[in-house]
Amino acid sequence: MIRVGIVGGSGYTGGELLRLLLFHSDCQVVQVTSERFAGKSVSKAHPNLRGTTGLKFCALSQLSPCDVLFLCLPHGRAMESIGDFQSLAPRLVDLSADFRLHSAERYQHWYAGEHSRPDLLGSFVYGVPELHRDALRSAALVACAGCNATASILAVRPLTRRGLVDSIVIDVKAGSSEGGNVSSDASHHPERSGAVRSYRPTGHRHVGEIEQSLGDIPIHFSATSIEMVRGILATCHVFISESLDEKAVWKIYREDYGNEPFVRIVKERSGIHRYPEPKLLAGTNYCDIGFERDPGTDRLVVISAIDNLMKGSAGQAVQCFNIMHGLNETLGLKFPGLHPV
Amino acid sequence: MIRVGIVGGSGYTGGELLRLLLFHSDCQVVQVTSERFAGKSVSKAHPNLRGTTGLKFCALSQLSPCDVLFLCLPHGRAMESIGDFQSLAPRLVDLSADFRLHSAERYQHWYAGEHSRPDLLGSFVYGVPELHRDALRSAALVACAGCNATASILAVRPLTRRGLVDSIVIDVKAGSSEGGNVSSDASHHPERSGAVRSYRPTGHRHVGEIEQSLGDIPIHFSATSIEMVRGILATCHVFISESLDEKAVWKIYREDYGNEPFVRIVKERSGIHRYPEPKLLAGTNYCDIGFERDPGTDRLVVISAIDNLMKGSAGQAVQCFNIMHGLNETLGLKFPGLHPV
Amino acid sequence: MIRVGIVGGSGYTGGELLRLLLFHSDCQVVQVTSERFAGKSVSKAHPNLRGTTGLKFCALSQLSPCDVLFLCLPHGRAMESIGDFQSLAPRLVDLSADFRLHSAERYQHWYAGEHSRPDLLGSFVYGVPELHRDALRSAALVACAGCNATASILAVRPLTRRGLVDSIVIDVKAGSSEGGNVSSDASHHPERSGAVRSYRPTGHRHVGEIEQSLGDIPIHFSATSIEMVRGILATCHVFISESLDEKAVWKIYREDYGNEPFVRIVKERSGIHRYPEPKLLAGTNYCDIGFERDPGTDRLVVISAIDNLMKGSAGQAVQCFNIMHGLNETLGLKFPGLHPV
Amino acid sequence: MIRVGIVGGSGYTGGELLRLLLFHSDCQVVQVTSERFAGKSVSKAHPNLRGTTGLKFCALSQLSPCDVLFLCLPHGRAMESIGDFQSLAPRLVDLSADFRLHSAERYQHWYAGEHSRPDLLGSFVYGVPELHRDALRSAALVACAGCNATASILAVRPLTRRGLVDSIVIDVKAGSSEGGNVSSDASHHPERSGAVRSYRPTGHRHVGEIEQSLGDIPIHFSATSIEMVRGILATCHVFISESLDEKAVWKIYREDYGNEPFVRIVKERSGIHRYPEPKLLAGTNYCDIGFERDPGTDRLVVISAIDNLMKGSAGQAVQCFNIMHGLNETLGLKFPGLHPV
Repeated sequence: MIRVGIVGGSGYTGGELLRLLLFHSDCQVVQVTSERFAGKSVSKAHPNLRGTTGLKFCALSQLSPCDVLFLCLPHGRAMESIGDFQSLAPRLVDLSADFRLHSAERYQHWYAGEHSRPDLLGSFVYGVPELHRDALRSAALVACAGCNATASILAVRPLTRRGLVDSIVIDVKAGSSEGGNVSSDASHHPERSGAVRSYRPTGHRHVGEIEQSLGDIPIHFSATSIEMVRGILATCHVFISESLDEKAVWKIYREDYGNEPFVRIVKERSGIHRYPEPKLLAGTNYCDIGFERDPGTDRLVVISAIDNLMKGSAGQAVQCFNIMHGLNETLGLKFPGLHPV
Repeated sequence: MIRVGIVGGSGYTGGELLRLLLFHSDCQVVQVTSERFAGKSVSKAHPNLRGTTGLKFCALSQLSPCDVLFLCLPHGRAMESIGDFQSLAPRLVDLSADFRLHSAERYQHWYAGEHSRPDLLGSFVYGVPELHRDALRSAALVACAGCNATASILAVRPLTRRGLVDSIVIDVKAGSSEGGNVSSDASHHPERSGAVRSYRPTGHRHVGEIEQSLGDIPIHFSATSIEMVRGILATCHVFISESLDEKAVWKIYREDYGNEPFVRIVKERSGIHRYPEPKLLAGTNYCDIGFERDPGTDRLVVISAIDNLMKGSAGQAVQCFNIMHGLNETLGLKFPGLHPV
Repeated sequence: MIRVGIVGGSGYTGGELLRLLLFHSDCQVVQVTSERFAGKSVSKAHPNLRGTTGLKFCALSQLSPCDVLFLCLPHGRAMESIGDFQSLAPRLVDLSADFRLHSAERYQHWYAGEHSRPDLLGSFVYGVPELHRDALRSAALVACAGCNATASILAVRPLTRRGLVDSIVIDVKAGSSEGGNVSSDASHHPERSGAVRSYRPTGHRHVGEIEQSLGDIPIHFSATSIEMVRGILATCHVFISESLDEKAVWKIYREDYGNEPFVRIVKERSGIHRYPEPKLLAGTNYCDIGFERDPGTDRLVVISAIDNLMKGSAGQAVQCFNIMHGLNETLGLKFPGLHPV
Repeated sequence: MIRVGIVGGSGYTGGELLRLLLFHSDCQVVQVTSERFAGKSVSKAHPNLRGTTGLKFCALSQLSPCDVLFLCLPHGRAMESIGDFQSLAPRLVDLSADFRLHSAERYQHWYAGEHSRPDLLGSFVYGVPELHRDALRSAALVACAGCNATASILAVRPLTRRGLVDSIVIDVKAGSSEGGNVSSDASHHPERSGAVRSYRPTGHRHVGEIEQSLGDIPIHFSATSIEMVRGILATCHVFISESLDEKAVWKIYREDYGNEPFVRIVKERSGIHRYPEPKLLAGTNYCDIGFERDPGTDRLVVISAIDNLMKGSAGQAVQCFNIMHGLNETLGLKFPGLHPV
């Protein structure tokens, strides 16, 4: 049994990690920290876990050595203490934004502050298995991707890596759990319920990751909050540089994702589930991807859906964990999602 | 033109009052206070009013005399300063809970604190026009009813006042705007969205008002928060002391409400809108009431629906205002509601 | 491996059964029927199952013998063909209403039609394990309980079986999946969204089952559809015949449910998840139960929550299946639910 | 009083027209047709109108001459009978798609069928007052714009008419009432609730209108259905051909819309309502427009919001009606919308 700890385990990604790892056949959760809930049952913060575990939160200061630490701290906190965490565990999986970007300049540009550990930026593997599976197998340090970045990159990477793309407009629709578990005026139910809020028309930080992964292609990104708790739909308007019919697009996506355990191509001719639908993915680790060619134009619309807390965060982390330990990649991640829901 | 002021105008009931009074033919809103927004446009707090008014918030200390003051302060604050408000305006309409109960004991029982102005408790008319229209005509002081109390009282009062009732179980389903505009863990969208939360199975404060209005009948009240922003549905399980068929019930409700401008009996044999539905009432001052006899038992189910911010608060206040000034009761309150919505 | 078939597998309960049984360690789904989808992949009707199975629907006429048949037909259809099903499998688990009631008179009363196989009514075990576990162990025929009945019975049975109850008002809040997967005016999204619809103030058919299980106690039942897809919250206003404080109630529920794998007592002093919450149970087989004494009255409010498609239907069926086969009762039913959601 | 009739009045746009015209100071609704509801009260189809009118539906065959006919028929039906309607009323306002496009070729392209009255295509004025106010003043025939087209055109027209645009990607988020009041698998609540459905990634018919209004600029349009009943948010990614800072953009929009009664520029530096929000517009005739420049790129994001049944249909029709009759443009359209909602 691999002994794991979760640092910052009272938030939403910490809760998802717990849900996954408590039922994972090859690991044991030995500790989970929360300053606010230290000493209390984890089900106090995560009511879905009632009756499934006797685990209690401990304080950060009580952490003891283990095999893997998952870091679920607010952005900026992991880099401050990364040395301490390295001394506690040989493998770290960071779910924050701290180590996703490989250059200090890029970090400074997108996060408007200096990085405190630029020396380590090159040591983290970016946690998207579909791009970096080989590197993950031997990785000691993993930085999980941002949720919007994950959905965007998986959607268009098969095209960009083949040099088929001139530019992309990515229009993301996102649920409220993206904002974490701290309440605010923006998350107040009477205001947030039913909202269609253009919360980041330009300048979203995840663009830094997307550009880093896709290379030198203009990325135009906007994000809109909609009535949904979990889930992301990324509508990617891809302007292609070559004539591609739908058959050719099918071939490309099948080549790249045909053997991927968590990427499905969803494109049906009829019915009400013709394209990816985030609500079907709640609780799952899937990224569903569909596409439609706009006839007579150079536009290909690629649509991807994920659960932001799963494939966009905790599920991705567990998939990385499985790869890092040479396990079956789907361990602990087999929940197929609900319908209807 | 009647010159009115609104004290505590940045909250939800203050916003509704503004929406109603700015379009009211016979009154002029001369001042509206908010300590937080003083000096700013009212549309900063109430974005639906953009472009409809140039009015700005002022501080409480800047209030000047006017004809009527509407008090939208948090519970407990109106009674502290009631003397000041009386010196500013000959007529006060209080939307808080401070002056709804007529006895200091009852107040102490339900609000767990002493009333600071028990001398005035008898001077306020309880603002349910269907019960106290005559008293309202000459009232200087009005205490608007609580939203759950309004829905409950209007639903069953025709039966209780005829001595037909043994006991009542009132099961209220309520929207999130009941909780006001201050965010909290309880109102955080990922938690509150889709919730069916038993927030007050027993002990709801509005029971004090209901008992005061209905007399000596056992009232069993529970309230559940559901996915809804505005609106209340009260399902009243009324145990009747006499055999009454549906025809007899129709007769009773027609007698009491046949001429009421804002109470409609909603009971259809077929279709999808057979009974009162709060979403159809959003923004309106209606209380819709329906009923169904449980054959072979002593139960009559009476169902009422209102918009908690309208008939349950600001709309009720304006209806009282119209009555106090001898105006047509429906002035400013004619919006019929939307469908679909 | 136990070989199972599902009859009428394209609906919502059939889909849930598939989701559970495809991942069940001790059984193999060998056939699933749908006249409409015969020959098509099961994921055509159940998009959550994409990529998890190659199973296709067959026609009813193509059914071959197997170990267990789950019947998910519309009400009235199982009794017509029950003989055929008995000849195909030694064990039947019926998810319809056809064999829940033990007397033909009671059936006629609640379903307004004659039962076509009254001879079999006594042979079916009512599928609530918490009440009939021993009988289920050797049962060949099981009739799963109605979803509202399940929530209601589990909520109050510990009190009624001890003779502590005078009468009960059960006020159920229900999601739209209760109505099945056939669209209608009533389920049209612009009408159903945000609705608080008193769809059955009196006369709900599940009352027949509830009365049968609880015995000679007046049951007053109303059901309201609210904005929710999955889930039931039953607010049970229980009028008790003896003085019971909360400690005594705790003791009673712990005695009856302390060892139940799928019943949890949920009652916390603080926080936002003090009482059962159906959204936390989506996809799980739990029935969460909480309570609150109304001081100074004879009312005890008991609150229960389930997922209507799980503990209220397919999950209950699988739990019965496990018991019937001497398996661990929780096999295939361990999903703990999501938070937030 | 202007005497008006509504043809096809039982649908959602017919219901909105009724809601507006019954309270309009200068007109009288003399007839409203519905084959399905002929002889029944209009509130049978439009429950929000209960108690506000005694009007009954009549059959199409019972129509008699009046001053204006509003046509709310399914697409394709108005052109079949347009001659009959012209003989009944000197002024027609058509809310369907039949006469929006000015050329038969364009119609054939987008609607995949031949137009039966191409001779009339040039006689209808396209009902967007902000573009065609002068023509509307003397119009006898008006074709109201499609809802998505209205939101899109108003959002970007100030830029396109100044020749500042290279291309536009329009990403529309839409509510379920766009689909009308006929239920289907696609509108079934358990499926449609919480959906983020890419229902028209390419090929939306409204593009024909948008191209006609904006001229020779590449328009890339996709529409996604989200959890919402009323409302459209159009996120327009505008690629501009000249360098424009936000000040310059402000100036352009103020020039074009500064005097428009129903277009508001919504762009705030802080708070939770910084950009247009469709839920605030439910029931109103506003089109709110905001924008944000993407620094260092050629992208300007323009965001517009409307109520699809109001500014996108019935409200637009009434605004046109007011203009056609020389009335104040805002008559009957003053409802400011609700907050919170």
